[in-house]
Amino acid sequence: MESIFTFLERRVDDCSSLLCIGLDPHAKDLPAPTAIAARDYCLTLVKQTSRYAAAFKPNAAFFEVFGAEGWTALQEVIEGIKEESRRQGSLIPIILDAKRGDIASTAEAYAKSAFKNLDVDCITLSPYLGKDSIDPFLQYSEKGVFLLCKTSNPGSGDLQDLMVSTVNGPSSTVPLYEHVARLAQTWNTRGNIGLVVGATHVDAMIRVRAAAPDLWFLAPGIGAQRGGS
Amino acid sequence: MESIFTFLERRVDDCSSLLCIGLDPHAKDLPAPTAIAARDYCLTLVKQTSRYAAAFKPNAAFFEVFGAEGWTALQEVIEGIKEESRRQGSLIPIILDAKRGDIASTAEAYAKSAFKNLDVDCITLSPYLGKDSIDPFLQYSEKGVFLLCKTSNPGSGDLQDLMVSTVNGPSSTVPLYEHVARLAQTWNTRGNIGLVVGATHVDAMIRVRAAAPDLWFLAPGIGAQRGGS
Repeated sequence: MESIFTFLERRVDDCSSLLCIGLDPHAKDLPAPTAIAARDYCLTLVKQTSRYAAAFKPNAAFFEVFGAEGWTALQEVIEGIKEESRRQGSLIPIILDAKRGDIASTAEAYAKSAFKNLDVDCITLSPYLGKDSIDPFLQYSEKGVFLLCKTSNPGSGDLQDLMVSTVNGPSSTVPLYEHVARLAQTWNTRGNIGLVVGATHVDAMIRVRAAAPDLWFLAPGIGAQRGGS
Repeated sequence: MESIFTFLERRVDDCSSLLCIGLDPHAKDLPAPTAIAARDYCLTLVKQTSRYAAAFKPNAAFFEVFGAEGWTALQEVIEGIKEESRRQGSLIPIILDAKRGDIASTAEAYAKSAFKNLDVDCITLSPYLGKDSIDPFLQYSEKGVFLLCKTSNPGSGDLQDLMVSTVNGPSSTVPLYEHVARLAQTWNTRGNIGLVVGATHVDAMIRVRAAAPDLWFLAPGIGAQRGGS
């Protein structure tokens, strides 16, 4: 069975691009505040950009805000990406940007929702509840998890930059985000974990790369958030 | 305008109970794996327990797993709790257990979804992204936020028990969860923040109470997770 990152690498080769295109239908960008407008906005973006898309990343919040209709719209956007994949003859990975994180029995339901029902390839998760909150997702060994490590927002430092003392590893005091990167490296026994490291924090990105040399990065913040490359 | 905790205190007085009743329709507890079965399970529980409910806490995951139909079921459960409130003549607060946490522009959509569309009174949030991820929820000054501090699951220590160095406060090195409690105390300028502190960790509860003497606790873990009181 192919791992999620082999799948992603093949797509990167097929489209000669490393761009993950966010699908964030903010109400302010829509002609009307409806689920159908959100869906159509995303489907247009998918058609216009799919040639350059190493992956698409729909953001759950902007669909959830339209309730049941929003959830249907999200399913239709995912189906639209799959159609575009078939048209191109090259599967485009779909990353659900959901940032979920809950105790194991609840995480099982979130994992089923994302990986079975919506049938996306990857999901973003928060590490705050620890490994047992991530495990139910990792059980889907053909799917992938991008763990929040150093996020792109200005307030990310409130927790993520705190210096934490650890007994293991090459240095005993590191920023929390670096410790999360080390944990992710050890938790990655199935080869299906990546990290979210904001493109707005270049120094952090260098530290995380050193702490987790093997892991893929999802680097949001290029574009509206003004992060560079 | 009444604060959320004044509202909660009144309900506690009305029902002489501090019990927050979780509505977690696990698939294994349902006669069939459908949104309607989840809804009916919850509505029955609401009717059977509302007399003793200081609050109800529906868990978003167990509705999300049924897609659009699940979202409709969640709305119907919330409406069922409101009907029960009207019948009793005493409003019962509703806490959406969602553990969301995203950058500010996304958090605005999650806040609108919970506080305007679903019209719940409180939501659980993750602190990992920092204050700017919480602010869009705090803007709804008549609503409330329960911030994850020390969670009830076995893996909570992976991050939450790490010792962090801080420059402020009475002690310079404290567990991360205690630092979160201190942050919540300083972020609580509108009086609408509480903390999630698992009943499975009594020592942590004592430390958090000392760090945040003014904040309400939501203490999950009594029942299926075997926490005591």
